[in-house]
Amino acid sequence: MIYETIISSINKAGDLHIAPMGITKENDLFVIAPFKPSQTLDNLSTIKQAVINMTDDVSVIAGCLTGRRNWPVKEANTVNGHILCAALSHIEVEVSFVEEDELRPRFHCKEVYTETHAPFKGFNRAQAAVLEAAILVSRLRMLPLAKIRSEIDYLQIAIDKTAGEKEKLAWDWLMKSVEKHLDMKNGEAELKS
Amino acid sequence: MIYETIISSINKAGDLHIAPMGITKENDLFVIAPFKPSQTLDNLSTIKQAVINMTDDVSVIAGCLTGRRNWPVKEANTVNGHILCAALSHIEVEVSFVEEDELRPRFHCKEVYTETHAPFKGFNRAQAAVLEAAILVSRLRMLPLAKIRSEIDYLQIAIDKTAGEKEKLAWDWLMKSVEKHLDMKNGEAELKS
Repeated sequence: MIYETIISSINKAGDLHIAPMGITKENDLFVIAPFKPSQTLDNLSTIKQAVINMTDDVSVIAGCLTGRRNWPVKEANTVNGHILCAALSHIEVEVSFVEEDELRPRFHCKEVYTETHAPFKGFNRAQAAVLEAAILVSRLRMLPLAKIRSEIDYLQIAIDKTAGEKEKLAWDWLMKSVEKHLDMKNGEAELKS
Repeated sequence: MIYETIISSINKAGDLHIAPMGITKENDLFVIAPFKPSQTLDNLSTIKQAVINMTDDVSVIAGCLTGRRNWPVKEANTVNGHILCAALSHIEVEVSFVEEDELRPRFHCKEVYTETHAPFKGFNRAQAAVLEAAILVSRLRMLPLAKIRSEIDYLQIAIDKTAGEKEKLAWDWLMKSVEKHLDMKNGEAELKS
């Protein structure tokens, strides 16, 4: 089972890095598997600590994917790192061991502190649609244009019916990325024709 | 903004009824809008109290849609009613006023008690897929077969990639309903031909 979360980590200089990431659990350890190369990978290798943030604020996820990484944080309780202020709950972890991999090394992490900050408000279909669109945006170059268009059309329905302000903002950021990609592809097609 | 929740309510005899329902908020009041006729509508009209349960357990949602309504509950704290044990948080409400409507009367409800029971674990794409499939199952008779099939194929991807045991169980229950509907439609087509 994969949960979509926001991993916050720091480098030796203490610079914060936050990144949306799917995590799993194996034998009571959380598994974080950042791609090679990435800042989260470097930070986990060096500092061996991180914070797993569970948030329902999809503008953070869409923001990270569209170059908006400056989100409010506060000091973690027990590890060197930061808690996302938008987190409904968070887990502070220490790396227990690393499973090496060519593409995505797997950091098995022990929970050392956890806290709940705000209640779960229920499922919101627009939040799920933003999340799917965010995954789509992260894979634009690998997907045929027709698939991108049909998936966006499908996801747009839940946005129109159930979104709040944050979901609309997140959707708009992602759609600008999609439009830019489609424009570029159209440009390439014109050059070829 | 619409949140998908589980409304629990009772009738005069104290019999429990639970139903998945999308709720909104207007001027600090929660708006519950059950269809006419429905048990939730009768209970809200008579008892004027209910519990809004926020759960990430999609087997409850899929269960309610496929005739499995017997889920563990405990007594509410301040209203006549019950809290779903699977709730991550719940809100006990009293009806402030009713906006009459031919299809869906709107009960504007005041929060009288709220409690958080467990932390939000992060988004899970399979949970969102089950929720979309549940909405699809509730509208099977209104949808063309091709749309049902293509939507299920799309949602199946997130199930295969990210589901846990509860999400798989919920998906299986819903897929049995979909198959039954498709078989029936195929039967009708054969009769016509």
